[in-house]
Amino acid sequence: MEHLKISSAQRIIFESIKVLDTEPVLLEHSLGRVLAEDILANRDLPPYDVSAMDGFAVRSCDLTATPATLEIIEDIKAGDMPGKTVRAGQCSRIMTGAPLPQGADAVIRVEDTLALPADTVQIIVSVKTRHDVRPKGENMRNGDVVIGKGTEITPGVIGILATVKAAKMQVYRRPRVAILSTGNELEAMNDPVDPNKIPDSNTYALMAQVQALGIQPALLGIARDDPAELEQYLKLGLEYDVLLVSGGTSVGVHDYVRPTIEKLGVSMKFWRVAMKPGHPLAFGVLQCTTTHANTAPDAFVFGLPGNPVSSMVCFEEFVAPALRRMMGNPRLFRRTVTARLAHPVKIRPGRTEFIRVQLTQDDAGYLASSTGTQSSGVLLSMARADGLMVMPAEGTGLAAGAQVTVQLLDGTAFQNDINFRE
Amino acid sequence: MEHLKISSAQRIIFESIKVLDTEPVLLEHSLGRVLAEDILANRDLPPYDVSAMDGFAVRSCDLTATPATLEIIEDIKAGDMPGKTVRAGQCSRIMTGAPLPQGADAVIRVEDTLALPADTVQIIVSVKTRHDVRPKGENMRNGDVVIGKGTEITPGVIGILATVKAAKMQVYRRPRVAILSTGNELEAMNDPVDPNKIPDSNTYALMAQVQALGIQPALLGIARDDPAELEQYLKLGLEYDVLLVSGGTSVGVHDYVRPTIEKLGVSMKFWRVAMKPGHPLAFGVLQCTTTHANTAPDAFVFGLPGNPVSSMVCFEEFVAPALRRMMGNPRLFRRTVTARLAHPVKIRPGRTEFIRVQLTQDDAGYLASSTGTQSSGVLLSMARADGLMVMPAEGTGLAAGAQVTVQLLDGTAFQNDINFRE
Repeated sequence: MEHLKISSAQRIIFESIKVLDTEPVLLEHSLGRVLAEDILANRDLPPYDVSAMDGFAVRSCDLTATPATLEIIEDIKAGDMPGKTVRAGQCSRIMTGAPLPQGADAVIRVEDTLALPADTVQIIVSVKTRHDVRPKGENMRNGDVVIGKGTEITPGVIGILATVKAAKMQVYRRPRVAILSTGNELEAMNDPVDPNKIPDSNTYALMAQVQALGIQPALLGIARDDPAELEQYLKLGLEYDVLLVSGGTSVGVHDYVRPTIEKLGVSMKFWRVAMKPGHPLAFGVLQCTTTHANTAPDAFVFGLPGNPVSSMVCFEEFVAPALRRMMGNPRLFRRTVTARLAHPVKIRPGRTEFIRVQLTQDDAGYLASSTGTQSSGVLLSMARADGLMVMPAEGTGLAAGAQVTVQLLDGTAFQNDINFRE
Repeated sequence: MEHLKISSAQRIIFESIKVLDTEPVLLEHSLGRVLAEDILANRDLPPYDVSAMDGFAVRSCDLTATPATLEIIEDIKAGDMPGKTVRAGQCSRIMTGAPLPQGADAVIRVEDTLALPADTVQIIVSVKTRHDVRPKGENMRNGDVVIGKGTEITPGVIGILATVKAAKMQVYRRPRVAILSTGNELEAMNDPVDPNKIPDSNTYALMAQVQALGIQPALLGIARDDPAELEQYLKLGLEYDVLLVSGGTSVGVHDYVRPTIEKLGVSMKFWRVAMKPGHPLAFGVLQCTTTHANTAPDAFVFGLPGNPVSSMVCFEEFVAPALRRMMGNPRLFRRTVTARLAHPVKIRPGRTEFIRVQLTQDDAGYLASSTGTQSSGVLLSMARADGLMVMPAEGTGLAAGAQVTVQLLDGTAFQNDINFRE
């Protein structure tokens, strides 16, 4: 049986899945979604040349010699239109964002002035024309595309959407995801503790991984090792866009998932990937055969390992990129950082290995240390991890100090120390 | 007027705020929250020595010479208890996670065997004792603290919580946050377009920044430049744990926020920080004076700049760390990466400058390029940014190729290319 390279398996997945259809969403609920339409500017912004500072609108030619005393002829608040033209020896008091009056060509900030009696002000500094003036249309010009289709909606993008008053916009819809655990040995959350059983952690770890992508999955529960029961559950799961099945996909004689899933019409694309942890990993497609108007979309099945760490790592490498692709996101893969290895690591060559690591920072950058035993049964190694360190398949290991690539896991968008020089 | 260093301003904030009280949350809703209690193991896991593979439980001493043919005496599924003792020349078929039978001391995976007729199997490889056996209690021992108070609940942590069947747990509560924009020049989302006005983007950009931390803020709207109206709005805002006010806090004569907020009993801790963008930035505390049993918690006010980029940068550097501290999170600051500067950058010395950059990756690591004009009025520079590049206050700039620190912004937890070697 062939063991695929990770990139080959990902290519097969990406060739099968498509970006989903679109739906409208309110601005208030749009964070993290991906735009399915271009967003156009609805005005010039700023609509005029405006002041970039609180201060005084001046003629720069009046300030060739400073200090210079100028007469204040008007008081222009943000939101006001100026009424008077600034002439030689004059200025207008102006607020940030207020339109520049006729005659003026620069702004002096209030900190560079001294207030004098009788509506006059002393200007301390000389400036060039356009100083602290934001030109008309600097931010955006009416009708221009300000944010393109395919952009992930971040807080900065939401600021732009609010600027063009897009209260509602089209985004790609989220996939509907179902999660199923399989195996007689599993104990459900509400079952009493039985030392002969293993608590079902995969349902909840996968739930959280799906939630972290902004999707609320359906938890189907646990299917026992019985072909009829399994078929019922798998049938239900295939009504979703994506079904995640953990356990039951290896070659043991009690594993019914593969034959049952194929019986239901799913075409399996692969069963093995050359990675550790992550054995076995399967991917299949149930192609829609309906010819009616309301065609159901294709369903995709990921068969994940029963081991909790293996299941989580496979999710990160294959399921998360697939779900993000379906939501239209161009960024599919976990953010990577370069780190130095804190200790030597030995591996068996021939498959890519993911070591769970904690990251610390020193003057030379990131340092990666194993979170402890790397047995795929030990979920604590995952719970304590900041990232997955990638050990390439060639070679038998790396020495302490070697440069390694680490994929950052959820929870690492923030760090303990600010770690920059002021 | 003193301009504080960023770290000094942060220290003042951290000295004022406290971690909030706790509340129970269901496992299904716990992602991203911070544990306010230690979580204990409720059993030994695994409860016995178990198989790490699908294969055969053997006596390693039977395999000193291989291939060796063994009699299969039993079939042990996960969830079953073994009934027979493995003696010389015998083995039991065993599934991953099933208890090791008496007599056996190692597991041979099915791939290293050949099936023979009449309930016998040929074993191809020799193994040491304990090979592919996961010892009792390897994952956790009954009564041990498996996840400590103060841990952020990531998907891996949720896997552990499910393992010990913690369906509900105590977490630190989220702060209640209110957002207020100020200024006559602002146009609300539902107002008709008026070229003399500026659309209120700060309300929504701040909303999204707060949402990205898992908090749903209250949007109070826009207070006009009128002391009475402003007082009404500020009074309402101070009923929340944290009030974010953007605009109206500079030294212009029309800025009423400072006197009004002080009139309402808020003690202002600082007004100026030596950073760009970010001018002016204020922080104040309304200390609870009630002596009754049900004391309201203190309220904290951040006065943010009216400029949209400045407001967002100040949120990242001061408000986000404060909100995360209130939620009990030990990780307060944006994740940083080291990058090379793609082009020279000039700055004015004396204040820390944050340049909005896009990040690309090549063989030598991250490359940072400015997103365009760094005017604090140009929100597109923020919408396009992957991160904030930090320019230290000393010096007048950096040459192309210089090593810089970049804080990663929301949307960057994933990247375009997988960027590791298999």
